[in-house]
Amino acid sequence: MVRTAGRLSLDWYRNLDRVENKHAMAGRDGFDPVTEADRAVEAELRRLLAERFPGHSIMGEEYGLEGDGPLRWTIDPIDGTRAFITGQPMWGTILGFQIDGHPVAGWMYLPALDESFIGHGTSCRMMTSEQTRTLSVSGTEQLEDAIVLCTDPTMFPPGEPTERFQRVAERVKLVRYAGDCVNYGLLAMGLADLVIENGLAPYDIIPLIPIVEAAGGVVTDLDGNTPTEGGYVVAAGSEALHAAAIALLKP
Amino acid sequence: MVRTAGRLSLDWYRNLDRVENKHAMAGRDGFDPVTEADRAVEAELRRLLAERFPGHSIMGEEYGLEGDGPLRWTIDPIDGTRAFITGQPMWGTILGFQIDGHPVAGWMYLPALDESFIGHGTSCRMMTSEQTRTLSVSGTEQLEDAIVLCTDPTMFPPGEPTERFQRVAERVKLVRYAGDCVNYGLLAMGLADLVIENGLAPYDIIPLIPIVEAAGGVVTDLDGNTPTEGGYVVAAGSEALHAAAIALLKP
Repeated sequence: MVRTAGRLSLDWYRNLDRVENKHAMAGRDGFDPVTEADRAVEAELRRLLAERFPGHSIMGEEYGLEGDGPLRWTIDPIDGTRAFITGQPMWGTILGFQIDGHPVAGWMYLPALDESFIGHGTSCRMMTSEQTRTLSVSGTEQLEDAIVLCTDPTMFPPGEPTERFQRVAERVKLVRYAGDCVNYGLLAMGLADLVIENGLAPYDIIPLIPIVEAAGGVVTDLDGNTPTEGGYVVAAGSEALHAAAIALLKP
Repeated sequence: MVRTAGRLSLDWYRNLDRVENKHAMAGRDGFDPVTEADRAVEAELRRLLAERFPGHSIMGEEYGLEGDGPLRWTIDPIDGTRAFITGQPMWGTILGFQIDGHPVAGWMYLPALDESFIGHGTSCRMMTSEQTRTLSVSGTEQLEDAIVLCTDPTMFPPGEPTERFQRVAERVKLVRYAGDCVNYGLLAMGLADLVIENGLAPYDIIPLIPIVEAAGGVVTDLDGNTPTEGGYVVAAGSEALHAAAIALLKP
């Protein structure tokens, strides 16, 4: 379902005539673009979910919350809209499933790469047209050995939060920006060791929590809680690395 | 030839056992990884070029300069090695051709995306397995409307150079980091409007100059010269935008 809905977005990808500017429409400052593609993907995924799971509630970026009860789906139709409108391939359709608020399964489909990720329990897999691969995190424990991913350095407010992030950035082996949801897939694959982000919405992170956890990683906010409300997120490929990062990041 | 050689790199991509650390090997600080893949791609491309153009000289990241004379090929076997080792798809094999030092044609192949770019004269094209597309830059003239790409915000030395870059970043619509050579392809496609980078090596930029110019763009250093020596590069989708950026960036 995630792949079927997610692929609809490709009609708009790198198609200059079809991209809109959400903030221009909303009259707000800045640039937080959304596209017809967002709405097309979310509408289709809602339709497919409602067909199979009529009693479940659905929360999504574009159309809000429908239904209630203990079983909830969370959709971000295009996570990484800035990459999407710039023609960069690192964006995806993500779907999470929660029972009583607890994220138990997550799916991520990357249309520009045709890659699917699924995580639940202790099973995390990635599927392409050519292969299925079982994923596990790197297990890297030292900051000095860590590759850190973060969608944008301006995610952290100026002043102490930025300085704290920079303290981590100076210690580690490498920091790469961009990536959005894909960063959590790379963490699950063991290719990156730490994802540090701020200002996330619930739908940005809920689907990704089970993917990272099923690969053996740790995902929390700065207080060590599961970040189902979004906000500040630290995801790591080992408990030790997670603790070392939190020690530097937390005020 | 670029595609044939470039595809060799895929044997190492996202293959955790086969990645090396150039700086660890060289005993230097920091993390500037190179892989066996770099050397395999460059060796193959040199072999293919030497077979067809025995009198030409070849310059490459891994094996230096061979030969002399007015006709020179420049190879960066994997531009974007940090993306490559992190499993991010935005890296490529790039090849430039110069006559008497002037870059007249450029090729870029992106193995993880199977996309090829070619630029010479006033013809810039992108090819995938599904389509060939003629590229032209956006023509965006105002900084306020511009999408800016830059591989890494730490490319600019602390102090005035970083402040000047930030002055541009605050004016424009959007800044995206990462991308390496791919950014110049996105500029040629009209999806981004400005690429601003610093500290490039000659082989990082020589192949990309004809791609941007053939799509109607402008590529110079801060003094308005063709940046065949690398260093600081400003590439834009219009003369007006290029001038506006240089006015803020140049000390």
